[in-house]
Amino acid sequence: MDEKPSHSSDSLYVKTFRRIPVVFYLIKWLIITLLIGAGAGTASAWFLFSLEWATDFRESHLFMIALLPLGGLAVGLLYHYFGKRVEKGNNLILEQIHSPKKILQFRMAPMVFGGTVITHLFGGSAGREGTAIQMAASIADQFTGLFKLRPRDRKILLIAGMAAGFGSVFGTPLAGAVFGLEVFFLGRIRYDAILPAFMASVFADHVTRMWNAHHSHYSVSFIPEADFQNVLYAIVAGICFGLAGRAFAKATHKWGGFLKKHIKYPPFRPVVGGVIIAALVYLTGTTKYIGLGLPTISAAFSEPLPAYDFAAKLIFTAITLGAAYKGGEVTPLFFIGATLGNALAYVLPMPVAVLAGIGFVGVFAGAANTPLACTLMAIELFGAEIGIFAGIACVTAYMFSGHAGIYSSQVIGMPKH
Amino acid sequence: MDEKPSHSSDSLYVKTFRRIPVVFYLIKWLIITLLIGAGAGTASAWFLFSLEWATDFRESHLFMIALLPLGGLAVGLLYHYFGKRVEKGNNLILEQIHSPKKILQFRMAPMVFGGTVITHLFGGSAGREGTAIQMAASIADQFTGLFKLRPRDRKILLIAGMAAGFGSVFGTPLAGAVFGLEVFFLGRIRYDAILPAFMASVFADHVTRMWNAHHSHYSVSFIPEADFQNVLYAIVAGICFGLAGRAFAKATHKWGGFLKKHIKYPPFRPVVGGVIIAALVYLTGTTKYIGLGLPTISAAFSEPLPAYDFAAKLIFTAITLGAAYKGGEVTPLFFIGATLGNALAYVLPMPVAVLAGIGFVGVFAGAANTPLACTLMAIELFGAEIGIFAGIACVTAYMFSGHAGIYSSQVIGMPKH
Repeated sequence: MDEKPSHSSDSLYVKTFRRIPVVFYLIKWLIITLLIGAGAGTASAWFLFSLEWATDFRESHLFMIALLPLGGLAVGLLYHYFGKRVEKGNNLILEQIHSPKKILQFRMAPMVFGGTVITHLFGGSAGREGTAIQMAASIADQFTGLFKLRPRDRKILLIAGMAAGFGSVFGTPLAGAVFGLEVFFLGRIRYDAILPAFMASVFADHVTRMWNAHHSHYSVSFIPEADFQNVLYAIVAGICFGLAGRAFAKATHKWGGFLKKHIKYPPFRPVVGGVIIAALVYLTGTTKYIGLGLPTISAAFSEPLPAYDFAAKLIFTAITLGAAYKGGEVTPLFFIGATLGNALAYVLPMPVAVLAGIGFVGVFAGAANTPLACTLMAIELFGAEIGIFAGIACVTAYMFSGHAGIYSSQVIGMPKH
Repeated sequence: MDEKPSHSSDSLYVKTFRRIPVVFYLIKWLIITLLIGAGAGTASAWFLFSLEWATDFRESHLFMIALLPLGGLAVGLLYHYFGKRVEKGNNLILEQIHSPKKILQFRMAPMVFGGTVITHLFGGSAGREGTAIQMAASIADQFTGLFKLRPRDRKILLIAGMAAGFGSVFGTPLAGAVFGLEVFFLGRIRYDAILPAFMASVFADHVTRMWNAHHSHYSVSFIPEADFQNVLYAIVAGICFGLAGRAFAKATHKWGGFLKKHIKYPPFRPVVGGVIIAALVYLTGTTKYIGLGLPTISAAFSEPLPAYDFAAKLIFTAITLGAAYKGGEVTPLFFIGATLGNALAYVLPMPVAVLAGIGFVGVFAGAANTPLACTLMAIELFGAEIGIFAGIACVTAYMFSGHAGIYSSQVIGMPKH
């Protein structure tokens, strides 16, 4: 277990003794991650179907948006009376990884599933990774008792669960695996969960695909050479992405704190947020900034968009999530990043698809402090050629986003500079 | 510097104070990494040219191989009398990262350059990443005095230097950056050098390309679906790659230890190694297992090769490097992995190019304990589609390669299981 580096202890006995545990380790985690993959992949698939349905229904029944405050009230009441122990969501999982205490309740999965579908059905601006991660982690954690896992193994299990949820909901298994390893410490990766994270994410992604759930595709056809000038542009863009990620995290925290301070009864907070969102949609006359915003994300790769799109989405999402609607931050961060990249094409001489692509992952890299996962995500979504620009932009965004990201239970493992 | 996570301290003063250091940090490291990139990229390019020349000359003047013991003696004498302080090579750099003491002597660069060209000119079996890393790091370290860097910054500088050397010599900047971050701790990545590592590697790679140095290309045309069966095959292959990496590290260490014990005068050790290699070439009648072995690596992606190729290369390289010839381990590990993957195609129903490709990076991932860098390398060399199989194989190889890799100064940051 705590094998020391040594070139001397080579008796057959030691060799055999050394080899066996890793084989057991592999078989144990192969079985567990296959189960996690089946559960998390299935949950992600059904969740993606439900989101598609909710989005389509809302877009063809726009009056639904006026009912957002009621939807928010329903979810608020549900969590207040039945979900006290699961309402911290992603942060609860991160806390359990750092100091394992109580098994996650299974109800976390159906509650966050239902809560998120309601957010999207009634037109909140939110994402889906939080939901996928919470479903996957709470499903995974049910195996803790079943397999009588020790606290150290439970930590690995939770990391694998997060990886499985993330990888399957976005169709990016490598990014999912590294996200699981990267997210709980800021500035540090530890490899004790590396094999389970990779296996769980790959298996879950495959299960989601077996259900025929499909993921969005984006096309980045031409990537310029990574000469000094273009790399410098990517750095400049990365700074903007990092500051946007920082602004988003701050705005959401601040608005959430403001509501908490002034509205003592939690179920009323989403009501206030819902009223504001519904009013904003009515005033602006567009549904562009609510929901997942997938059509606008796609458009950001090919056509000029208003330069304020990213700011509008940032405001809509901060209002929604700060008011405790369920969902996630990541897809709105993709939207903010892709449209901010699109806007930067007005000033930086780089192809709009490249700027949209590196923005897509860059703002998220800054806000979640996960630059390597985001670099891999760009490669999985847009191809290997964007790798250098994505890597530079994500790492720069990470450097410029400050130490307080979207996950407040993330522990600082290493200051950034 | 040691900014704490906080959502409260938002006065303009604090904000400005927080932002300025990271801008300074960026500008400082932009300048330093541009210099490192220029130096390391140029060194890598000239080194690649020299290796091409040395290989061509040897292959058209096969009698050179008989002179290998003399070449080894020359390099041994040189290092014994003029290179005591640089002969530990890569391990010296790793030690300086862990506990910075003395600036690396600049002579490390020309000595390892010349020593490696001699290895290849006379037919030792070795690689080139050690040379590229040592050249880059010793060039980089000359800036320590120039910029009056503190020990903490010097550490970042050395990591960036290793990244630049690795990224430029293989034409894989992302793998280079992550290799620099990943190699000095086993089982852990820390992000304090992440931006400098990325910039240095990308800049150095670009400079090498500006010199028109070219890298080998490998073609992996068809990648099967990542279903359970194929992922399981990748795991099985990964186990083989990990054990091969482990066997290589052990064989090299053991043979090196044996020579050290029985031959007290260091310059005679490469003589003995050279006699054995020359005799083996004469007996086997082939130069397939000496030098870099690039033609065989290419062949491994497309045609059936003898199943013992990987073992032969392992033996030739362990004999060469254990006898203190200069070069590196990585290209031979590519050879061992690609041919082992090729051999596994006799038993695993996967395309030979996929198995060769994941073996190429997998054995190296296990031997150097750098699974993420190797996953990125596969993506950079073979395309994004191989990512899942490469990731699974590299991580599995990492799990199965034990805790004593090729770099004995690597510190165990986290036991593997």
